[in-house]
Amino acid sequence: MRTATPPDFDPGTVDIDKLKERAFNLRWATQPEDVIPLTAADPDFPVAPPIRQAIGEYASAGVFAYGPDDGFGDFREAVAEQLRSVHGIDARAETIMATDGAASALMIAAAAVLSPGDEVITFDPVDFLLPHSAEQIGARVVRCPLDSESGAIPFGVLEGLVTARTRAILLCNPHNPMGRVLTVEELHRIARIARRYNLWIISDEVWSNIVYGEVPMTSIASIGPDTASRTLTIGGFSKNFGLAGLRIGFIHTPDSSTFGAVLAASGATLTTFGSSVLSQVAAVAALNECQNWLAGFVDHLRDLRDHAVERINRIPGFSCRRPEGTYVLFPDIRGTGLSSEKITQLLAREARVAVVPGHRRWFGPGAEGHIRLSFATTFEIFDEALDRIEETIRRSVR
Amino acid sequence: MRTATPPDFDPGTVDIDKLKERAFNLRWATQPEDVIPLTAADPDFPVAPPIRQAIGEYASAGVFAYGPDDGFGDFREAVAEQLRSVHGIDARAETIMATDGAASALMIAAAAVLSPGDEVITFDPVDFLLPHSAEQIGARVVRCPLDSESGAIPFGVLEGLVTARTRAILLCNPHNPMGRVLTVEELHRIARIARRYNLWIISDEVWSNIVYGEVPMTSIASIGPDTASRTLTIGGFSKNFGLAGLRIGFIHTPDSSTFGAVLAASGATLTTFGSSVLSQVAAVAALNECQNWLAGFVDHLRDLRDHAVERINRIPGFSCRRPEGTYVLFPDIRGTGLSSEKITQLLAREARVAVVPGHRRWFGPGAEGHIRLSFATTFEIFDEALDRIEETIRRSVR
Repeated sequence: MRTATPPDFDPGTVDIDKLKERAFNLRWATQPEDVIPLTAADPDFPVAPPIRQAIGEYASAGVFAYGPDDGFGDFREAVAEQLRSVHGIDARAETIMATDGAASALMIAAAAVLSPGDEVITFDPVDFLLPHSAEQIGARVVRCPLDSESGAIPFGVLEGLVTARTRAILLCNPHNPMGRVLTVEELHRIARIARRYNLWIISDEVWSNIVYGEVPMTSIASIGPDTASRTLTIGGFSKNFGLAGLRIGFIHTPDSSTFGAVLAASGATLTTFGSSVLSQVAAVAALNECQNWLAGFVDHLRDLRDHAVERINRIPGFSCRRPEGTYVLFPDIRGTGLSSEKITQLLAREARVAVVPGHRRWFGPGAEGHIRLSFATTFEIFDEALDRIEETIRRSVR
Repeated sequence: MRTATPPDFDPGTVDIDKLKERAFNLRWATQPEDVIPLTAADPDFPVAPPIRQAIGEYASAGVFAYGPDDGFGDFREAVAEQLRSVHGIDARAETIMATDGAASALMIAAAAVLSPGDEVITFDPVDFLLPHSAEQIGARVVRCPLDSESGAIPFGVLEGLVTARTRAILLCNPHNPMGRVLTVEELHRIARIARRYNLWIISDEVWSNIVYGEVPMTSIASIGPDTASRTLTIGGFSKNFGLAGLRIGFIHTPDSSTFGAVLAASGATLTTFGSSVLSQVAAVAALNECQNWLAGFVDHLRDLRDHAVERINRIPGFSCRRPEGTYVLFPDIRGTGLSSEKITQLLAREARVAVVPGHRRWFGPGAEGHIRLSFATTFEIFDEALDRIEETIRRSVR
């Protein structure tokens, strides 16, 4: 998505004072003064100027009446256009619903297509929101373990997990926390299994814009009509455009009947669920006016990723795969002889750096022996954090 | 809540073009060009200027990171202060949670204190969100019929509905759609029943600022410590400050244990639920800077109420009680010989005025024979609507 215009993203500027006031969820506002948080995957950078302007302009008219239950027309059209042009999905605005964030979108998608007693297959490790979305409605989650080094999917194992009760596969692509972008061949193999056993695919693509080019990002809903017809695609605006606090995401459904099920499951028709109209306005500005900013953001992240992976691999006992997507690193730290939990405590106490432990609760049992670090910040801040981590590990671990 | 400064609310200005773009939920943007919507209870007036300014200022810094799962500290403090100073509740910020609207707050409150198989008592008629909140988690709803003319609660009947399984009373005060403000004596009688049978009270007070003075608004959580200890109070910013589209409300809980149950039930700790940070910013500005605007809004509504009730009672077959709170009128239209549904269709087709039928689905079986009209608009628009309604009824109904 490079364009000819120079990107207007500024890789050197973050407003630490504002982050200490406003960035929660284990980040700056919740940590002691001297701790650098590499925790929740949320950028330190302020949002692109057109987003701020669009919010101010919308607010100036002063009308904040009830929005449509499924989202503003221009929001749904902008998402459809993005899904068509960037992701190759045959998307229509009419079957897209605005949601209160991508996490809510996952809950709704699961509620729309699953019933208590169903089984779903997801991976290990994977972000907790995927299994949680199925568990909250009483479905049973079966995990297919990924290769702990490469993150590859063992397809023989995967197909063997399907039972008569299996109803869906929950994908995370690009994959959090492994940072993998699934190849088109992998997606076709998943699609064949879904077709053979008549399964839904819920594809969490909240990271789809944060990809570095080594593996092209492919939305599974774009690979063919049968797959499209059984796929609910989920996206958001937090990872790409920094709008986590505005709580805005979407679900793309394959047809009007699935769309109806999603809308009913959401509660939006009864006003018990919905997304703020201002958040939709911000998202429209992001999609329509900030692609250049996003390209600059991704360029910066690619440079920082290369630098960070090289540095992390020099820390004794750490081994880190280079992610093709996402801005999380997921180093294997078993070489230190410490558990995920112990090293997280050590780094918080001694290095004054907060990371996410590879805990079963957040990523599944396969995450043990890892920690997760978000690098959506400046070179300066990330280097300072790595200096401290390296120093602590060299000093504390023999 | 009158103050010495002249109110800055302007009762004569609405922006119909913006409403036709932005006001959904059966209102301007969803109706044919020539229809006046008196449907969803949402003001036609633009919001107070300090709200617009606060949004613009917050947005200009460009940091929209994850907010706290329970809400910003200043939001919770502003709500606590309002509950203490206006409503007499012994409220603390620590046990208040920001929610994605008052409707969501009701769902969460019910989920926090009810279990499948429990019984709850609510009234008939009452806004559908109250029974729905209990039904969504598998509780059984028992309705106590209100006096259809006065809206009075038959206490003998109410107490007779309590069984060993009854777990909560769901109150709506001021009452939608009857427009009643419950008297302090009624609240004490409800509180005695709650105490005798050890029931929770979930009190939907989203209308608490829209009261006209004939009956002082009393929050049931303010009448004594036992009652406070069993009451969850719900409020919002749509009816008073016109922020429906921003989806912002709150739950006040009596103690940290109930607060913990509410937070867990919400999903906010897992990011699957929350309120937009900008919506909280808007609400803080509303509470802290717009009380004067609100007083002016209520003055206007009181004048329009008196005028509207008098006019409606001159329409043949209509009989309308004067509400002491809310900006909905709920005339009994049985004198026309038409059902709620039929008269709603007639008014839409002939008068080009949209109203809400007194349908079982929206208000319970006791609503039949009524229609609901929202009057949060200008004299000019409401008079035009009433002219058309009166003309249609005089012409069409013998």
